[in-house]
Amino acid sequence: MKKADIGLIGLGVMGENLIMNIESRGFTVACFNRTTQVVTNFIEGRAKNHQIIGAYSLEDLVSSLKKPRKVMLMIKAGSPVDTVIESLIPLLDKGDIIIDGGNSHFPDTIRRTDYLEKLGLYYIGMGVSGGEEGALKGPSLMPGGSVEAWKEVKPIFQAIAAKTSDGAICCDWVGENGAGHFVKMVHNGIEYGDMQLICEAYYLLKNLLGMTADEMHEVFTMWNKTELDSYLIEITADILAYKDKDNLPLVDKILDTAGQKGTGKWTAMASLDEGVPLTLITEAVYSRSLSALKEERTVASKVFKEEKKEFTGNKEEFIEDIRKALYASKIISYAQGYTLMRTAAQTYNWNLNYGGIALMWRGGCIIRSVFLGKIKDAYTKNGELTNLLLDDYFKNSIEKLISSWRKVVATAILNGIAIPAMASALTYFDGYRSERLPANLLQAQRDYFGAHTYERVDRPRGEFTHTNWTGAGGTTSSSTYNA
Amino acid sequence: MKKADIGLIGLGVMGENLIMNIESRGFTVACFNRTTQVVTNFIEGRAKNHQIIGAYSLEDLVSSLKKPRKVMLMIKAGSPVDTVIESLIPLLDKGDIIIDGGNSHFPDTIRRTDYLEKLGLYYIGMGVSGGEEGALKGPSLMPGGSVEAWKEVKPIFQAIAAKTSDGAICCDWVGENGAGHFVKMVHNGIEYGDMQLICEAYYLLKNLLGMTADEMHEVFTMWNKTELDSYLIEITADILAYKDKDNLPLVDKILDTAGQKGTGKWTAMASLDEGVPLTLITEAVYSRSLSALKEERTVASKVFKEEKKEFTGNKEEFIEDIRKALYASKIISYAQGYTLMRTAAQTYNWNLNYGGIALMWRGGCIIRSVFLGKIKDAYTKNGELTNLLLDDYFKNSIEKLISSWRKVVATAILNGIAIPAMASALTYFDGYRSERLPANLLQAQRDYFGAHTYERVDRPRGEFTHTNWTGAGGTTSSSTYNA
Repeated sequence: MKKADIGLIGLGVMGENLIMNIESRGFTVACFNRTTQVVTNFIEGRAKNHQIIGAYSLEDLVSSLKKPRKVMLMIKAGSPVDTVIESLIPLLDKGDIIIDGGNSHFPDTIRRTDYLEKLGLYYIGMGVSGGEEGALKGPSLMPGGSVEAWKEVKPIFQAIAAKTSDGAICCDWVGENGAGHFVKMVHNGIEYGDMQLICEAYYLLKNLLGMTADEMHEVFTMWNKTELDSYLIEITADILAYKDKDNLPLVDKILDTAGQKGTGKWTAMASLDEGVPLTLITEAVYSRSLSALKEERTVASKVFKEEKKEFTGNKEEFIEDIRKALYASKIISYAQGYTLMRTAAQTYNWNLNYGGIALMWRGGCIIRSVFLGKIKDAYTKNGELTNLLLDDYFKNSIEKLISSWRKVVATAILNGIAIPAMASALTYFDGYRSERLPANLLQAQRDYFGAHTYERVDRPRGEFTHTNWTGAGGTTSSSTYNA
Repeated sequence: MKKADIGLIGLGVMGENLIMNIESRGFTVACFNRTTQVVTNFIEGRAKNHQIIGAYSLEDLVSSLKKPRKVMLMIKAGSPVDTVIESLIPLLDKGDIIIDGGNSHFPDTIRRTDYLEKLGLYYIGMGVSGGEEGALKGPSLMPGGSVEAWKEVKPIFQAIAAKTSDGAICCDWVGENGAGHFVKMVHNGIEYGDMQLICEAYYLLKNLLGMTADEMHEVFTMWNKTELDSYLIEITADILAYKDKDNLPLVDKILDTAGQKGTGKWTAMASLDEGVPLTLITEAVYSRSLSALKEERTVASKVFKEEKKEFTGNKEEFIEDIRKALYASKIISYAQGYTLMRTAAQTYNWNLNYGGIALMWRGGCIIRSVFLGKIKDAYTKNGELTNLLLDDYFKNSIEKLISSWRKVVATAILNGIAIPAMASALTYFDGYRSERLPANLLQAQRDYFGAHTYERVDRPRGEFTHTNWTGAGGTTSSSTYNA
């Protein structure tokens, strides 16, 4: 039998769809699943009459592959990945390549790349986005790890990846060791933010303007023809139009408790580790946690008197204000996410191509949007851009959006409608553009109670002073505490 | 020579002051420092004519102690603690006690307790708060770890701990293994939040109302006679009155870039791990990170046109509104912090006494306040209280504060004054008291693109549905991805 170009382990929806996608581009694919009945079902069903080889053991899978062998894992992140890697190692030869296409945490990918390279194998941690449909028709792929392996897998992955309308391929090399999974993690964090922002806009349209699902369907359909043009706005319009069996909007029947798989949380944690204010995404993560407290919220809603919500302005104008607030907040979210990537790249010595990342996200993935083309442009103009907000296009956009943005957030605040992501975006912007923040008082407090010392505006940076504020404490600074 | 009641390692400001405090209560203290010249200086200086024994090696220190030996570490958290523990183990006998009084991360304390107990030793991880002055005159002490050791150290620690005005002792047993350091970590997170809130109030008084440091000194002095009565408000009033050599307010000369030592970050990360929305403290941590970007903010302040700030209302009334906004936000911060402790207690099997924790914080520590007495009362009334906001006192307080709170946040938003903590507190409150959040749309999105399934409002919890939204996708839910 003809040997396969690549082997894939894990026949979930994503795994199966990726196999169908790879095979459709003229490659032969071998596949394996721990529960082998799944292999049988797949081979006798969807894979029938395709160049797809079913394997019933890892030995079987490995022996069916061309060299250098390429084995891709589409399995649950965490210890299962380590288990499968350990089982594969004795079966592989030097120069063979393991690719992890799951949502692995980037420190694990850093560790695994190092481990496998020392054994003479290659490792690629690849972010895969686009959900089940993307996997089948063209996902966004973010590979990182052993750069020597890239030329071997590039023909396959670039063939199956999404293409933008102007033909650009949404798959390129991201960087060393864990860079691919890090960028995918940030992608997921941004996805959390985008979804939360859409929910907040929906919440305002529904609860403040009292709009029906059908009316909101029209609004999101219209918004999708503006700068907000994106997959998530598009599916929101679809969702709002979808009717349940009783012909009422299905969205109203869905319980308001959101699940999560942890990548948003990881993004927030990485930002804390890097000291990068990633306020919007973190609020989006917390919002999911809060949504999960359904019973407690129900109790609280009865404890606290409802404050009346009334909107007295021009409804059409306010819909446009909400659109602008959503767009401005989205700019902040991406500015924060890109700052996180820039900072982490320094920490982990990754040489990231920021424009290339925007291009990879431009098609195929959940956050795909026209907007990402503008980010690509910004980094093409200036690869060293410190913050997206300082790019002319985004700077001018924010200045056009700012008054609507302030109006929407203030109105929500006054009417008791929770818009944590939009509000955190605006307070971040106001902090970021402030030469002087009130942290001088904070430094004085720290010096007062803990002798932590402070710098002065009229002295060089790096010169630390301690003041004996009360006249009673010592003159010793706290640095000796750490000595 | 008389044997010492306790030995202390690490003669920083905190260590020295704790020794002086312990000795002043009639105990004999032995001390050691890695750089032994520090021991000499201390013994010949401040410790002269006190019952304090200088040791010039760990062997020296250990042999000078009564059994069971009590050795307290006041050294830098992290690997130095492990190093000293390893050096101490061969010198100690079964039943001896090591106490770590540094800001260790609670997972380390869990690990160390387990390790030392297996060797027949006892371990206590103890939070110490109060800064250098507290250490000397009466700190807040939060001990946790080997419960069998508590009776041995209780007489010493309760003797040196702070006492409230009504005589209660600010030191009691917190709980198993890492509970003491966890509670101290949350204390520090709350301290971050309290300081940020004061900074935001100061920022509004200064930038929106245009008040001078002297005028603000009067405001904070007045606020300290209200529900806000607390150490941090008190020192803020002091700081605002403090004049530099040129007789101008020193606070205005201090650089607005705040430092941090990591415990705030740990608190935020723990909340993400536990799925508890700790929005205010996390915003406070991010605000410090943003403050550190001084150069970038200076650039941004020139890129974005300043929006004019003007206040047209009644100034005296607005000062009172700011006070109420600060108080309301503070209630939210503590409600979030207590929720984190309750959730972590379930995760780690700690039996925490929430009223007792409020009492430990009531005096001695940086966040000490009259307010904590109200929290103590709430948990005395109901030890199983789900959320502080549901207690009558706090519920009634919030309802009295809410209109001022909304007004202040909205005004800041409209005037471009960054108040991330106050805003995040309010958006949390509005989410918490909402029976229906927009997460139904979010669940629809997740099911649309990832077949993640959802629950319905008209079906029992735990029953998950998948909809084929487009008619084009499969009917397989994504759960198989994880199979």
